[in-house]
Amino acid sequence: MSDLKHHIASAFDRDLEGIQAKIMKMGGLVEDSIQLSTKSLESRDEELAQSVRSGDATIDALEESLNQEVARVIALRAPTASDLRIVLSVMRMSANLERMGDLSKNIAKRTTVLVQMQPIGDTSRSIRRMAREVELMLKDALDAYIQRDEALALDVIDRDRDIDQMYNTLFREFLTFMLEDPRNITACMHLHFIAKNIERMGDHVTSIAEQVVFLTSGRKPSEMRVKADRTSTDATLAPDMPDAGGA
Amino acid sequence: MSDLKHHIASAFDRDLEGIQAKIMKMGGLVEDSIQLSTKSLESRDEELAQSVRSGDATIDALEESLNQEVARVIALRAPTASDLRIVLSVMRMSANLERMGDLSKNIAKRTTVLVQMQPIGDTSRSIRRMAREVELMLKDALDAYIQRDEALALDVIDRDRDIDQMYNTLFREFLTFMLEDPRNITACMHLHFIAKNIERMGDHVTSIAEQVVFLTSGRKPSEMRVKADRTSTDATLAPDMPDAGGA
Repeated sequence: MSDLKHHIASAFDRDLEGIQAKIMKMGGLVEDSIQLSTKSLESRDEELAQSVRSGDATIDALEESLNQEVARVIALRAPTASDLRIVLSVMRMSANLERMGDLSKNIAKRTTVLVQMQPIGDTSRSIRRMAREVELMLKDALDAYIQRDEALALDVIDRDRDIDQMYNTLFREFLTFMLEDPRNITACMHLHFIAKNIERMGDHVTSIAEQVVFLTSGRKPSEMRVKADRTSTDATLAPDMPDAGGA
Repeated sequence: MSDLKHHIASAFDRDLEGIQAKIMKMGGLVEDSIQLSTKSLESRDEELAQSVRSGDATIDALEESLNQEVARVIALRAPTASDLRIVLSVMRMSANLERMGDLSKNIAKRTTVLVQMQPIGDTSRSIRRMAREVELMLKDALDAYIQRDEALALDVIDRDRDIDQMYNTLFREFLTFMLEDPRNITACMHLHFIAKNIERMGDHVTSIAEQVVFLTSGRKPSEMRVKADRTSTDATLAPDMPDAGGA
């Protein structure tokens, strides 16, 4: 009986290893898509944008296969409470990664439109810098998951505030460009969505890091989280916007 | 043995009933939040907006409790393949509902800013109409789930294209208002986000309806889905936008 139990436990561990390898592969593809979509924007490279758009199918297929694998493992191994928690957290993480892939794809889509327009100052460079930060956060969140490193996960959660701040700054820049010249409006609205997409990616990474904290310590960091996108409530963005380009 | 099996099956059924009751309760609260957030926008009712913002905590708590319940049921009842599929689909549906609650809350947040500004034509009326459609879609998607009604679920999926169309029309309206008078820009950007939020709610409802189709027929309707938000790729939105207010 104890031999059987041991046998079952290691079968679960092998399954889990396979699942975790798939999550890491998916994470790597999402990191690439974040980097390449904003690189295509900055270098106005339509072909690169196109490759990001078509590459998203691979990420979607990996999520699908992960979900099937998770359901199979639950049905076959009937994992105990703490193993079940790990397996269910993988399902959530893969959903986060899949959404991030969608957001990259959307950035690449808008890029194919934006290359037909005048660039808006050097905002695409700022956008790429913001995306680079999110990419590093994702890398660390996945490392934190594999190492079960709570401190690193908490650090990732903390860094999301920088992303929100970068987004707020860009939001004001776009407003200024639109006020300066109405012909900038369409491009700025697309760029604004791109910035917002990256900010949302930051939220997804945060959610992955929160799963890690929960797995390692049982704590729910969502309660201590501060939401710093102030553009939805910022009273300084008044109708006549005297300080739209300011702090 | 067959008695024991029967006993286990009905315990699972009882658990599932409890879970489904919770999903329906959550769905009702989300329907309310959609309706009330856009009502507060149209009637410029800051107090109502505030109540939507504070009400989101209840929706979040329900999702949390549903997830715990699902994990408990999986661990305790070790459901078979098809029962497991139902239970996992509930987990995804509750994630969709929770995100919809967040989007309503975000609309209510932006409303508290927008009431300080000039109204932009009658766009808040169009927004409320769009939200009303999404609310009805959600109602039908949840009915389809309870009744296991594939035809109704497919109908919901089809109606998401109307939402996308309404969003595209609004997008062009906002562009026109911004071009007309740069002082409209801030309000239009907030309103644009609100419209986009409702469009995203439509995507979440579609995802719920897709779960129903999958549960009833094993088919994956996502492959047959047509994505109709054309603002990310629409070439007619050229730099000088000669037809920004047109079709």
